[in-house]
Amino acid sequence: MSEYRTSIGSADETSIRLLGHDLADDMMGKVGFGELAFWLVAGRRPEPGELRLFEAVLVALADHGFTPTVIAARLTLTGAPESLQGALAAGLLGGGSRFLGVTEDCGRFLADALAARQGESDDELALEAVRAVHSAGERVPGLGHPLHKNGDPRTPVIFRIAEEEGVLGPHLRLFDAVGRVHPEVLGKTLPLNGAGVCGAALADLGFPVGILRGFALLARAAGLLGHLAEELRNPAGPAIYDQVRARE
Amino acid sequence: MSEYRTSIGSADETSIRLLGHDLADDMMGKVGFGELAFWLVAGRRPEPGELRLFEAVLVALADHGFTPTVIAARLTLTGAPESLQGALAAGLLGGGSRFLGVTEDCGRFLADALAARQGESDDELALEAVRAVHSAGERVPGLGHPLHKNGDPRTPVIFRIAEEEGVLGPHLRLFDAVGRVHPEVLGKTLPLNGAGVCGAALADLGFPVGILRGFALLARAAGLLGHLAEELRNPAGPAIYDQVRARE
Amino acid sequence: MSEYRTSIGSADETSIRLLGHDLADDMMGKVGFGELAFWLVAGRRPEPGELRLFEAVLVALADHGFTPTVIAARLTLTGAPESLQGALAAGLLGGGSRFLGVTEDCGRFLADALAARQGESDDELALEAVRAVHSAGERVPGLGHPLHKNGDPRTPVIFRIAEEEGVLGPHLRLFDAVGRVHPEVLGKTLPLNGAGVCGAALADLGFPVGILRGFALLARAAGLLGHLAEELRNPAGPAIYDQVRARE
Amino acid sequence: MSEYRTSIGSADETSIRLLGHDLADDMMGKVGFGELAFWLVAGRRPEPGELRLFEAVLVALADHGFTPTVIAARLTLTGAPESLQGALAAGLLGGGSRFLGVTEDCGRFLADALAARQGESDDELALEAVRAVHSAGERVPGLGHPLHKNGDPRTPVIFRIAEEEGVLGPHLRLFDAVGRVHPEVLGKTLPLNGAGVCGAALADLGFPVGILRGFALLARAAGLLGHLAEELRNPAGPAIYDQVRARE
Repeated sequence: MSEYRTSIGSADETSIRLLGHDLADDMMGKVGFGELAFWLVAGRRPEPGELRLFEAVLVALADHGFTPTVIAARLTLTGAPESLQGALAAGLLGGGSRFLGVTEDCGRFLADALAARQGESDDELALEAVRAVHSAGERVPGLGHPLHKNGDPRTPVIFRIAEEEGVLGPHLRLFDAVGRVHPEVLGKTLPLNGAGVCGAALADLGFPVGILRGFALLARAAGLLGHLAEELRNPAGPAIYDQVRARE
Repeated sequence: MSEYRTSIGSADETSIRLLGHDLADDMMGKVGFGELAFWLVAGRRPEPGELRLFEAVLVALADHGFTPTVIAARLTLTGAPESLQGALAAGLLGGGSRFLGVTEDCGRFLADALAARQGESDDELALEAVRAVHSAGERVPGLGHPLHKNGDPRTPVIFRIAEEEGVLGPHLRLFDAVGRVHPEVLGKTLPLNGAGVCGAALADLGFPVGILRGFALLARAAGLLGHLAEELRNPAGPAIYDQVRARE
Repeated sequence: MSEYRTSIGSADETSIRLLGHDLADDMMGKVGFGELAFWLVAGRRPEPGELRLFEAVLVALADHGFTPTVIAARLTLTGAPESLQGALAAGLLGGGSRFLGVTEDCGRFLADALAARQGESDDELALEAVRAVHSAGERVPGLGHPLHKNGDPRTPVIFRIAEEEGVLGPHLRLFDAVGRVHPEVLGKTLPLNGAGVCGAALADLGFPVGILRGFALLARAAGLLGHLAEELRNPAGPAIYDQVRARE
Repeated sequence: MSEYRTSIGSADETSIRLLGHDLADDMMGKVGFGELAFWLVAGRRPEPGELRLFEAVLVALADHGFTPTVIAARLTLTGAPESLQGALAAGLLGGGSRFLGVTEDCGRFLADALAARQGESDDELALEAVRAVHSAGERVPGLGHPLHKNGDPRTPVIFRIAEEEGVLGPHLRLFDAVGRVHPEVLGKTLPLNGAGVCGAALADLGFPVGILRGFALLARAAGLLGHLAEELRNPAGPAIYDQVRARE
């Protein structure tokens, strides 16, 4: 008996099975890549409406220009052009608590509040949760953005798609309430940011909070691949290096 | 003037642009994740038939059970559970020349042969190319599989989908010819493997060979995420560690 | 003016400066590698006694057999033999909170207790600190070892060397007290482990707790290099892979 | 019987063995960290003169200011401050063929030439080797430096230390000859660079060429740790990020 059976995939001499299906006959050409990613993590195939919201989240998180992770990936390719996997890995390693972590932190913040709910309305629950975080001297996850000070353009789109597809659940509703009530606690109005709304949407899709950062990493992997393909065509790494060195 | 302009993405206070389009208005909810990945690397949006073949390739490469990359990723999570990005990165770092490299090597092998073509038929060209590699004492990329000795189930599906979608191009045709002619040179018949046919298909889709490994890495990122989600639910890392230690 | 001056190193056409000295004339052949590592992080050259304790810590942390990090590094080399840096990086990525983190956690635990000291004796302070952690339902950093149940052989040696060199400071003294008083709180006697005593020693050497894990990583880098050199001579990766696959 | 016995280290309940010795009794406090690194890879303890040359090499390769690897490591810490191992790994991943690879390439270039020697003098052999590489349209490993155009200050020091310690062997002698004869082939005089002379010295110390890059990585790990400690005290990452973004 195996000490570690996996339900992901297996292969024998004549067939490859993935998620309990025959990879060649039942999956290739019939399942999209985003759909497969959802299925691999959730262990169930998404409904069309769930998939549209899920892919909108991945598209929203894929790229944000010359972020530190992109710069790190391009500079790593400059030093080790033989190892595309090393450059991609270096880029993903910057996807931690400061940037991509927001998606996970926001999902956890909302999930914890909902788990402790005792009949309060969304606004009451949001008020308690925001007060608790604020009085602990911490920042409320999903609030504020260094650039999009008057509103993150991704946020209303996620709410609209979830609405259209009938998959707007308790986490998004509570996040919406956080947007309404936080000024009463913080004394100022902050935008609901894109990373946060994506965390709320992923939590509504039923993913455990511990894996939410993983989807931000998967989305970023596609964005990094685009940057590395561009770096191979038209390198920016050496110029970035020279510019940094020039300022030493 | 910027020394390093990117055509991938940019953001200002009110909008985020990706690939020259408004992320929120034109992409989220309208572009699938696989479609975005193609677009990010190719710099152009795929036709529906191209996209179906492309996603079939990503699905084919996403997982292959307990590979060394999966084991490395799970053991890394065992040691550093606070860093999902580290576990994912560790898994991708094994995606080098030995495993995922085949996709790139096969694409390059076929592209080089086609670049040197001087009117030969596919079979003639394949024969020259196989002879050249074989006489150099090297293995022919895309031929043979440690497990699927009598045929990789993914290979005919990629050919069929490319056929159905009218995107079967010169690389796949030459790879097919390699399958016909190699016994004459090698004195034995080997299967056309899945990693190789995926490289041929990606080359037919117009991607430069230098980036092909990147798609294998992106597909594997989704597979690794599935394994890491399973590892969070039901850890195998400690058991693998104990088993290895027991054999020291 | 530079926005980011570094005091580590710089170079011009005729000379290379490191830590304010001429690399070629003043450092090469005159400064050992362990001494340089101390100097790079502390910003000051160690006294001979400090250096002996510091190198004993690095030697103590360098290797512990077939750990998950070693297995991950070897399997990564199996998949990507062209990238020694990828295999080393994969091995280091497992050096997180579960394993190497103990060194940092223990240093922080002791430093926090000492920062809050108000005239208590070492035993009184240790008792308060152990009670606080235990009542919070957490494990006391540096206590217990899965293998060395009756005592970690590295622990007494670190205390002895610190004593001999006259650099046994408050962190080691408090850690010693933790060893004396914890049974009163936990109701059982656990060994002071090697990772913990190394954290106490590094804190006594004046390093900030935030960097302690870095020394465990540096020591492990040397150990991993030994394993990777052995892997190049006599590969274990494929056998480990086969064994794991056999148990699927 | 174990399929993968290691000669590096092992542990049981009462003792830890490293390289066939008792870690606590025979190594801690008696073996330096640089000495241990040599021993781990070579499988034998270095002579004092070998150790002095070896540590001079590590010191020479430890840091070179704001290199791309340092920038990547610092930016990775900016994004993932919870994972020092991720920042260190990201920095090491840039240690590939372009930068740290020179040490390995030069060692291999010299070792291959010496393996093919048939009684030629060093200058004759160097002339053949340089001609062969040059006529193949490749650069001669170890020749030239973007900054130290009139001589790398590290090169003469390595030769002097090897001389003083009586460990100047065939690789360093041949590298010296390359410095004398290359102008005759290239039509210009280039400096023997530090990365190259370190590769020659490591090869003379008996290390296989396949592991040479590993020592450059180990040395760089210490340098990166110094930069990360400085980054924790006084962050440069955010300023670098802002500066790069400002030039988009």
